[in-house]
Amino acid sequence: MKTLNDFNAHDLDRQDPLARFRDRFEMPQGVIYMNGNSLGPLTRDARERMARTVSEEWGEDLIRGWNTAGWYDLARRVGDKIGRLIGADAGETVMCDSTSVNLFKAVSSALDLRPGRTKIVTEAGNFPTDLYMLDGINRFSAEKYDIQILPRDQIADAIDEETAVVVLTHVHYVTGEIFPLRELTARAHEMGALTVWDLSHSVGAVDVRLNDWGADFAVGCGYKHLNGGPGAPAFLFAARRYHETMRQPLSGWFSHKSPFAFRDDFEPTVGAGRMLCGTTGVLGGSALEAAVDLMLESDQAERLEKMKLLSRYFQLLVGERCQGLGLDCVSPDDVEKRGAHLSYRHENAYAVMQNLIARGVIGDFRAPDQMRFGFSPLFMSFSDIKNAVDILADILGRGSWQAAEYQTRNAVT
Amino acid sequence: MKTLNDFNAHDLDRQDPLARFRDRFEMPQGVIYMNGNSLGPLTRDARERMARTVSEEWGEDLIRGWNTAGWYDLARRVGDKIGRLIGADAGETVMCDSTSVNLFKAVSSALDLRPGRTKIVTEAGNFPTDLYMLDGINRFSAEKYDIQILPRDQIADAIDEETAVVVLTHVHYVTGEIFPLRELTARAHEMGALTVWDLSHSVGAVDVRLNDWGADFAVGCGYKHLNGGPGAPAFLFAARRYHETMRQPLSGWFSHKSPFAFRDDFEPTVGAGRMLCGTTGVLGGSALEAAVDLMLESDQAERLEKMKLLSRYFQLLVGERCQGLGLDCVSPDDVEKRGAHLSYRHENAYAVMQNLIARGVIGDFRAPDQMRFGFSPLFMSFSDIKNAVDILADILGRGSWQAAEYQTRNAVT
Repeated sequence: MKTLNDFNAHDLDRQDPLARFRDRFEMPQGVIYMNGNSLGPLTRDARERMARTVSEEWGEDLIRGWNTAGWYDLARRVGDKIGRLIGADAGETVMCDSTSVNLFKAVSSALDLRPGRTKIVTEAGNFPTDLYMLDGINRFSAEKYDIQILPRDQIADAIDEETAVVVLTHVHYVTGEIFPLRELTARAHEMGALTVWDLSHSVGAVDVRLNDWGADFAVGCGYKHLNGGPGAPAFLFAARRYHETMRQPLSGWFSHKSPFAFRDDFEPTVGAGRMLCGTTGVLGGSALEAAVDLMLESDQAERLEKMKLLSRYFQLLVGERCQGLGLDCVSPDDVEKRGAHLSYRHENAYAVMQNLIARGVIGDFRAPDQMRFGFSPLFMSFSDIKNAVDILADILGRGSWQAAEYQTRNAVT
Repeated sequence: MKTLNDFNAHDLDRQDPLARFRDRFEMPQGVIYMNGNSLGPLTRDARERMARTVSEEWGEDLIRGWNTAGWYDLARRVGDKIGRLIGADAGETVMCDSTSVNLFKAVSSALDLRPGRTKIVTEAGNFPTDLYMLDGINRFSAEKYDIQILPRDQIADAIDEETAVVVLTHVHYVTGEIFPLRELTARAHEMGALTVWDLSHSVGAVDVRLNDWGADFAVGCGYKHLNGGPGAPAFLFAARRYHETMRQPLSGWFSHKSPFAFRDDFEPTVGAGRMLCGTTGVLGGSALEAAVDLMLESDQAERLEKMKLLSRYFQLLVGERCQGLGLDCVSPDDVEKRGAHLSYRHENAYAVMQNLIARGVIGDFRAPDQMRFGFSPLFMSFSDIKNAVDILADILGRGSWQAAEYQTRNAVT
């Protein structure tokens, strides 16, 4: 059997069943975009949809757009579409707010469903906003929780009968390491605890089967692998078994049973809609819907397979071409154990990445010394990978990069 | 001195200093749009800005847009621009999230600044999401508050030394009545309480001078008179004197002192930025910025004056033309005491509004029996008012409207 080594980029591209999707993206000339894990690129569909939503739905329909253009259902409709990418059933996912706000809602709900328990377990080095939101919850909630922020290898053991909620990120934002969602959820359930999973780096990128794996709550980001646009709305999944009992603090009118009855008393709707809060952001939500629709056009198995191939191919070429040039991979060596990006440490990581960007290879930098390279099966080719590694090897080999001072505002992960 | 009665619509239009702004809006042919108080119409600038943000900033700049296109500063930049419309100083207002979420943040902060006090005072018939958010706060917060939902005339007396926060809406969403922000804030301060004002129907429409009037916190909507687009981001004002001490539960990474240091510990920034939470929604925020820029091009005094003239002219003509036809105005008779819309009760309000809309006059309906008509000085003419009343009088006079069944999902206020 042939291995990846036996193929060149051209062969791999010729056999790529997803190659036809590349033209659906509006990629600038000369750019190899390895940052879909941070901000997915613009699709043609999203551009056209935005023009239509702005000029026709808003411009022509005006207030009537809430009915004629389906704005009122947007949060649930796009939620359901995202749900198909993460193994949720219809009615379990809504699109709304930011990932941070959705974490607040999901964690608060889970805590409320486990009264009397006083412990929250999460990971040290989790994406910071996840930890920050727990800090805010604890400062204001009636119960003061013991928030245990632990190294990855201590998480499972720390889940006990005092534990109310386990808050973890499925794919780590730096290393790309995949946390075993199914096993940790089972462990939590065994102890009577609930789980909230952050799928920001998972959705649209890796295999996620929330219901098969027994998940309780999950949140995630619309602007990374979903290609929803800068600051796109996020999503929230709540397993159906909690739809009648869960409560969350952000009880805005879009989570009301009858929002247009304008009653003083709050009566929550039943379903994932209970996790909504204020008026749906239609412009951001429309771009996201167009991008998700494109993703649903492609075959999920083909996408997952190609992502792994792109990632392995990069790893292979870097291994061949950049040996001894100071790169240290911090992601799992086994492609099955990592998400859709690879991270490398380099003592001059920031300067190297600035040089890569100047030559059209856009990855990103994470302080203090890491570079991330993302793999996006719908718009990347194997030739992109080869060309990117050529440029990377050239920059590293010459060691002549211009020192660049790190700007803290350089990117939004 | 001539009164409004002495002028015809044509004269009034000829003397209108804001007439030139009408062409900046993309109003559909044949529509008289009296619903800017619910969803402001599309401006040419917002349409062009969206095309640019989508195709150039997102499409071309990709992740670099956070720096090159100023996305990172968007929340503060647009916040400051909105601040100029409500009498805030630079640095006191941020654009973010929804009005509901911002209410949660502002009320929680205010409560946190008044420990030991146990009472929240608000109005019966306030816009429901304001009441719903208080319900959610109370259910989850450490302190259980006595939330007093009172008729308007009992509010001032109810504010006492037990009162932590007074949560009121400046312009009532149905009647348009203006609550005396300055006097009630003074009353609250006299008792040691803080205030949170909802400016959703005020911003861009009526005179608001938050700092002159001693306001503590305020929130408001981007999609009504600001013309920011369907579900546009909202805003939050926090007076500078609280910038170092206020805390809010939604402590996401955009409210961190150093978000890109990716530290586990939460350390809030100083300033209104402390009221941010997750990643800024760039598409919605960009449309809102373009719309607010247009508003700032116009003279605030001229806008306020013309709004009142439009409103008085409508009132005058309805008085002349619709007498005895079953309309009952529920808004204050004095234009100085109401915001930028008039509400009328009619026993067939829903059917009448459906007929008006069918004939191009778009106002809205609020259950069970009220019609709202909004006045927007930048895109409405006095001829619009005259024509709208002609059509209204014709429909009411004939009494031959088709019965229409009320759809609860008919609009988002």
